[in-house]
Amino acid sequence: MIVQLALAGRLVGLLLLVLSAILALVAGYSGVAWLAGGVEAERAAFWSLLGGVGVGASAGLILVLAGLRSRARFGHREAMLLVALGWVLGAAVCAAPYRIWAAIRPTASAASHDFDTYINCYFEAMSGLTTTGATIVQQLGTLPRSLLLWRATTHWLGGLGIVVLFVAVLPMLGVGGRKLFRIEAPGPNPEGVRPRIRDTARVLWLIYMGLTVAEIVALRVCGMGWFDSVCHTFATLATGGFSTMDNSVAGFASSAIHIVIIFFMFLAGVNFSLYFSLLQRRWGAILRNAELRAYVLIMLGGVVLVSASVVGGAMGRVEVDPGAQPIHLAIRDVVFQVVSVQTTTGFCTADFDQWGPVAKATLLALMFVGGCAGSTGGGIKVIRIVIVVKVLLGEIERAFRPAVVRTIRIGETPLDTGQRISALSYVIGIVALFGLGTAVLLMLERGQQIDITTAATAVAATLQNIGPGLARVGATQNYAWFSDPAKVLLCTLMVLGRLEVFAIVVLFSPRFWRSE
Amino acid sequence: MIVQLALAGRLVGLLLLVLSAILALVAGYSGVAWLAGGVEAERAAFWSLLGGVGVGASAGLILVLAGLRSRARFGHREAMLLVALGWVLGAAVCAAPYRIWAAIRPTASAASHDFDTYINCYFEAMSGLTTTGATIVQQLGTLPRSLLLWRATTHWLGGLGIVVLFVAVLPMLGVGGRKLFRIEAPGPNPEGVRPRIRDTARVLWLIYMGLTVAEIVALRVCGMGWFDSVCHTFATLATGGFSTMDNSVAGFASSAIHIVIIFFMFLAGVNFSLYFSLLQRRWGAILRNAELRAYVLIMLGGVVLVSASVVGGAMGRVEVDPGAQPIHLAIRDVVFQVVSVQTTTGFCTADFDQWGPVAKATLLALMFVGGCAGSTGGGIKVIRIVIVVKVLLGEIERAFRPAVVRTIRIGETPLDTGQRISALSYVIGIVALFGLGTAVLLMLERGQQIDITTAATAVAATLQNIGPGLARVGATQNYAWFSDPAKVLLCTLMVLGRLEVFAIVVLFSPRFWRSE
Repeated sequence: MIVQLALAGRLVGLLLLVLSAILALVAGYSGVAWLAGGVEAERAAFWSLLGGVGVGASAGLILVLAGLRSRARFGHREAMLLVALGWVLGAAVCAAPYRIWAAIRPTASAASHDFDTYINCYFEAMSGLTTTGATIVQQLGTLPRSLLLWRATTHWLGGLGIVVLFVAVLPMLGVGGRKLFRIEAPGPNPEGVRPRIRDTARVLWLIYMGLTVAEIVALRVCGMGWFDSVCHTFATLATGGFSTMDNSVAGFASSAIHIVIIFFMFLAGVNFSLYFSLLQRRWGAILRNAELRAYVLIMLGGVVLVSASVVGGAMGRVEVDPGAQPIHLAIRDVVFQVVSVQTTTGFCTADFDQWGPVAKATLLALMFVGGCAGSTGGGIKVIRIVIVVKVLLGEIERAFRPAVVRTIRIGETPLDTGQRISALSYVIGIVALFGLGTAVLLMLERGQQIDITTAATAVAATLQNIGPGLARVGATQNYAWFSDPAKVLLCTLMVLGRLEVFAIVVLFSPRFWRSE
Repeated sequence: MIVQLALAGRLVGLLLLVLSAILALVAGYSGVAWLAGGVEAERAAFWSLLGGVGVGASAGLILVLAGLRSRARFGHREAMLLVALGWVLGAAVCAAPYRIWAAIRPTASAASHDFDTYINCYFEAMSGLTTTGATIVQQLGTLPRSLLLWRATTHWLGGLGIVVLFVAVLPMLGVGGRKLFRIEAPGPNPEGVRPRIRDTARVLWLIYMGLTVAEIVALRVCGMGWFDSVCHTFATLATGGFSTMDNSVAGFASSAIHIVIIFFMFLAGVNFSLYFSLLQRRWGAILRNAELRAYVLIMLGGVVLVSASVVGGAMGRVEVDPGAQPIHLAIRDVVFQVVSVQTTTGFCTADFDQWGPVAKATLLALMFVGGCAGSTGGGIKVIRIVIVVKVLLGEIERAFRPAVVRTIRIGETPLDTGQRISALSYVIGIVALFGLGTAVLLMLERGQQIDITTAATAVAATLQNIGPGLARVGATQNYAWFSDPAKVLLCTLMVLGRLEVFAIVVLFSPRFWRSE
């Protein structure tokens, strides 16, 4: 066990060093704004970001040095330890600047701030890294710009991390259950296309960078400032959801901005392997991709249902409320919200908590779908939904025709029983975690008398890495009011959801630690 | 298709004739009460019950005659058609006395009654036959005794029907997915123990009769009147839940009565195959039964959680509310409610809608467990929960040790992949139906602005054949206020839940009807 911890620790140490380097870049931005730009609010931010660099770099160095002599083979166990520890410790480092800033900010004596407790800072950092986007900051205006940038950057890093992990690292290790998105790997010889982890990761990195530059420019062209463009781009491509405005993207009136963000949220929810196909101009592989089709169809279905509910409801109220939104804007908001929720981004342009029960029920259902496998989106993933639906249909046929055995295929590829059981188990595991999490949250918060809708959607929104839920965690609300134990629970759910549960749960299994 | 319909029709016709015969017995009771006992309220009841006999007997005769010449082989398709049609048409006949009574009762001109619409009568009949126990009657005192007896009798018939069907008929036909409860069939040669459907059915019938007599006597000894004893026994053993009192079993103050009903609800939720073992004094087979153990453990867990919530909550209120219930009575109510909900009976001795969120969440979770396979209880069934938990634990291990293949066993019997996929699919199917049903119900009732808790628990309580839910379908409420389309939906859910979904769904599959 010590040997494995040491090896994983060394790699996590490297990760923390990388985080510190990026933190230093943000500190640089802050320093320039303070010293060159004369923004006084950045003084405390600069020192707190530098403090974060110090914390991260020291922790990273210690871990690297401690693990330097480890001779453990890098196998499944080490990979899982690395992933779990990386997220948990990474969030701890990412939270440091928030906490330091709250301690040294000039107005510290005057009023309390959400960052005054470390658990709040950790929640915000974990929400950032897991690309959830649930926030405990009640007024974003109280934060200096560089900290807003750092929040968005945690999203961007988390999104990149998850794509590299799931598309490049884990499949190469053959880690169970995480090979799903390669079912439709492009071409007959996927290994030939992407021979090494390092090469794959490099291409992914370039794709992610390309999308980032494209969205920043597009948002700037539509009239958003550079700073907001960068922050919103980071949050979009990671399907995160942190905004620079308290009312999220609703703070920008331009429809063009909304449409650009819808477009890039959609792209962020697509399996990044498909961008390889795109680069190779293999259009057929893209058009025939069963998961992509299902992703689009589910989204369209969601738009139709929610539109019917919202527009229908609005029509009924038009005479009562002459100031009601024109229909084309209502539909723009519906599309935005459906794409935002299904891709698990969590940006808001409308307070969907005010929509009718059908719209809310549909959004809740979409929360459980999520993006495609191998995207930055969270949730159950479209491919698993497709598999589960096919297995259920097969079971219905088997009920009256037990002798018939049909092969279940995704695209051209037949599914073996292991893959079927994995997908079914995963869905049940998520539903069980959702139920269990809701029950525990209700218990933890019974002093606050929270309603079931709040508890259930808070759990769904963190477990599926979405961000906002309904009722007291709705579009216009935040997570600041939860008790500390509840925040720990929600942080745990974010990691469980982000790393697809099993990677974390196994750490608590005695068998995992037993060497054979 | 015509051939199959004709054969199934003939058998359904026989079923309707049997129903009519039993209806005639209840009419006899009514006649004696009216003519000999001088109960004037029974006059209309007597004629309406006789009318029901007429409707059932004529429909039955027509179906039998129409199908007399059918030469179809009795296979899976015919069995499923029989089962589905049997329930749907059986409920139609069982509803007839209610509707006729509402039309001819002397006070018909004075006030409206819940039985004034046929859909209400059908809901009540379907709720009875599927042993759900959800009622649309707002004041049971308005009904003559013979109709109360008929309500309870529909439970008893439905319970017997479902046990015979699942323990004796379907397994012999080898109908897929319905063999689960035989995983632990007593002895190495189960066929030897119960060689024929007819013999098995006869033993089951005797067991059911024995339990019925035992409970009636026990309730009478505890001070309940004969009439109430019979009605509550019928509702208990079928895990139904119709009472003769508006406040259900809470209407009887005696703790002894509560305890007798708890005991028999527990017995009704046990796999009836185990009573075979009991008759053969094979104690080992009973004690080692994995499903029975899980059933007891889940129940105990439920009692602990709900007690902690209820007693803890009550302790907090003791000073405020000096009239609060003593703790031993509170725990009696908790045990009653946990057993009632988990066995899907649905009797109430406390308004659990007033309990704390943890208690309510636990009860909601228990709704999804249900009784053992091969019992009269509804729900997902304990054996499926056991299988799903074992598969999930296996998947967690597979996540870090992909090469290891472990056999999953229930007791001594290894599970094949088909059984695993069936159990997983079933759970997902139920959860999906639950979600879908809730969404549709919210949509149907949007005029009434029902809350999500009401909609979700109404769907759970009908799909799992429990009866009461929470909020507006809580322990002290009823289903009368739903719109007609919503009642049709809830009736459909009752049948889907009772017949374990697939038997019904396949009827809508074109492949089912295609002959090969």
